[in-house]
Amino acid sequence: MRPNRATAEELDAADPLAPFREEFALPDGVIYLNANSLGPLPAAVPATLDDIARRQWGERLTRAWNEDDWWHAGLRVGDRLGALIGAAPGQTVAGESTSVQIFNALTGAARLRPGRRVVLADAGHFPTDLYQAESVARLLGLTVHAVPMAELPASIDRHRRDLAVVFASAVDYRTGELWDVPGLTAAAHEAGALALWDLCHAAGVVPVRADAHGIDLAVGCTYKYLGGGPGAPAYLYAAARHHAALDLPLTGWHGHARPFAMEPAYDPAPGIGRARIGTPPLISLLALEAALAPLDRAGIDAVHAKSSRLGTFFLTCAAALLDGLGFSPVTPEDPSHRGGQITLRHAEAYPVMAALKERGVIGDMRPPELLRFGLGALHLSYADVFDAVEALREVASGGTYREPRFQPSGVVT
Amino acid sequence: MRPNRATAEELDAADPLAPFREEFALPDGVIYLNANSLGPLPAAVPATLDDIARRQWGERLTRAWNEDDWWHAGLRVGDRLGALIGAAPGQTVAGESTSVQIFNALTGAARLRPGRRVVLADAGHFPTDLYQAESVARLLGLTVHAVPMAELPASIDRHRRDLAVVFASAVDYRTGELWDVPGLTAAAHEAGALALWDLCHAAGVVPVRADAHGIDLAVGCTYKYLGGGPGAPAYLYAAARHHAALDLPLTGWHGHARPFAMEPAYDPAPGIGRARIGTPPLISLLALEAALAPLDRAGIDAVHAKSSRLGTFFLTCAAALLDGLGFSPVTPEDPSHRGGQITLRHAEAYPVMAALKERGVIGDMRPPELLRFGLGALHLSYADVFDAVEALREVASGGTYREPRFQPSGVVT
Repeated sequence: MRPNRATAEELDAADPLAPFREEFALPDGVIYLNANSLGPLPAAVPATLDDIARRQWGERLTRAWNEDDWWHAGLRVGDRLGALIGAAPGQTVAGESTSVQIFNALTGAARLRPGRRVVLADAGHFPTDLYQAESVARLLGLTVHAVPMAELPASIDRHRRDLAVVFASAVDYRTGELWDVPGLTAAAHEAGALALWDLCHAAGVVPVRADAHGIDLAVGCTYKYLGGGPGAPAYLYAAARHHAALDLPLTGWHGHARPFAMEPAYDPAPGIGRARIGTPPLISLLALEAALAPLDRAGIDAVHAKSSRLGTFFLTCAAALLDGLGFSPVTPEDPSHRGGQITLRHAEAYPVMAALKERGVIGDMRPPELLRFGLGALHLSYADVFDAVEALREVASGGTYREPRFQPSGVVT
Repeated sequence: MRPNRATAEELDAADPLAPFREEFALPDGVIYLNANSLGPLPAAVPATLDDIARRQWGERLTRAWNEDDWWHAGLRVGDRLGALIGAAPGQTVAGESTSVQIFNALTGAARLRPGRRVVLADAGHFPTDLYQAESVARLLGLTVHAVPMAELPASIDRHRRDLAVVFASAVDYRTGELWDVPGLTAAAHEAGALALWDLCHAAGVVPVRADAHGIDLAVGCTYKYLGGGPGAPAYLYAAARHHAALDLPLTGWHGHARPFAMEPAYDPAPGIGRARIGTPPLISLLALEAALAPLDRAGIDAVHAKSSRLGTFFLTCAAALLDGLGFSPVTPEDPSHRGGQITLRHAEAYPVMAALKERGVIGDMRPPELLRFGLGALHLSYADVFDAVEALREVASGGTYREPRFQPSGVVT
């Protein structure tokens, strides 16, 4: 049956997560399908920011390090993030940018496999992952082979004698494809190597089972499905079994066993504390902490279930409404092979997306041909998805996207 | 003449910076002498945070990357910081933590002197500087010698054939002593080496002349005298003459020449853009941008002049009021050899500081014997300084600080 708006409204009426829409501040007239880039503002965050500034910083000043426990914020928020990626407490730290955490984690991972000289990296990685991998390889004398994910099992097998680390993204940032994290982790282990996962496009929408799947290390950003706000601090996860030997290059004083003793030589803290680096950007970090509340209450499994259904509904609507308009789905149909995003291919992706934004439907695109639609489960309805695909149909069938007023805007992340 | 409160009030009446006090939100009954750790809240910041959250993030969502120019925030704020350390535009980038920027800058500096294997580091450095220096040295095969600043000229001479980088703090974080930045930079150059300065305790209170003094690279935090808020992003300065050859290890995608082309290989941006790393913590970064306004308007030279006078007045009051109470000044009397802080030694520094805080006078201490008083020129009056020293006299002469209720609180930064 051809889906229509009534279908969508019925799905919404039965949606247990529908009330969460009220916990996000979104502009009127906007359907926001870009949580794969920047999650929308949780309504509670502005009051949190005001409290951080006026009461914690303004009133308590340096006392807030103790009284508001700023000192442990990176570990406290790390544990909150850890719970969302299936990590027991004491294995995750929040702070710095994703790029920096990649550098730290990959160096640490490679040092856990001394003598082995190969890093296998996902050729479809977000570019910063590949740049950091090359930088780490140069410093440690390693070689990076970037291979398509489909070839990764064979590559692991080929390099098994010299393989130090398999470093891949759980979800492809362009296609939205979710890879076989447990299978590839097991294959890395079987080859005597470690698995380091970039969870940027998975965390907060896919229930990553870091501990259960034996992931060794992981990093990710927090401003996409985790909703922490622009540039919210990244995180590093390291499985507890590796802590004692974990030898990280970014030896900041927060990671010292006795930071206030001001000792001249670095002695890493026991446990995940050694992955702390410098003073984290506390305003951003505490905003992230507040932003996690709706996701925590909803539960990652419920969020994933709805996001999967939204994705299936999107693909169903697209098949019915966009037939013959030049679109083809890129993301797998099987929800167990998807992250939180649906990607469509179209030869004129850029002007199509620009015209769509003019109608208040916000996705983004990746040159030259990919349109991305992120399905944040807490703020989107099935009606939103139907309306978005309908807008896409109108834009594509009307041809208005070809008008010259739609110019590249430059920044997509 | 023994200074008294009337002396202080006369100095305040003639102080052109006195009106800036209104631009900071400080709690009633507090004299805040801890801007060497965390600058007080600029009154304009809460409204800025509200705008960042509600309008930029909440309303504009991903469009804010263009419409609020989030994309260039690290460079834009970098230039603002650059102006305060004597750097022409296009040489300073804001982002990440100080520890990370030290790692990046020191690696880059050493790579500008290939074949030279020695790093001379300030033995009085804040510990994270020494930890990062050892980490960089290990990765690059260098040797770090940590030497007292007084011995640095002789050490430069001794290692001149193999010296890559001199890495020191412009102002000692414990004693408040300002070192001879131009002279030591020139000595490093004469030996064929580069000078990397940690400006954490200098920027925002001492008019560092980065360009004029030929500094090669510099890093610093922004939450002390620059007042950017807890954990506000750090910065990296690199002189323009080094940009073309500057080869940094933290090769994040923001530093790529064509970041949105998503190329698999790293090609550093021309100019200081290559020192960008990952997505910066924008809420913290934009709060920092707003926080710089009072300092920009007052001017770093006026701020330095007043801070120096406050320091001299502090020492004068201390000499007159604290005689025979067990205090001795540690910071040099000559203002040209001081940063923004006065340090006193006292055998019972910890309980003395705790008792002082009970009276609303907030400084901090460094174990075992140092009491630190940061003299932020924009929010402090001469009367504040007099009252603080008077409180110190009362605490020390009354002996109440020995009561057991004053316990270590753990965190000082």
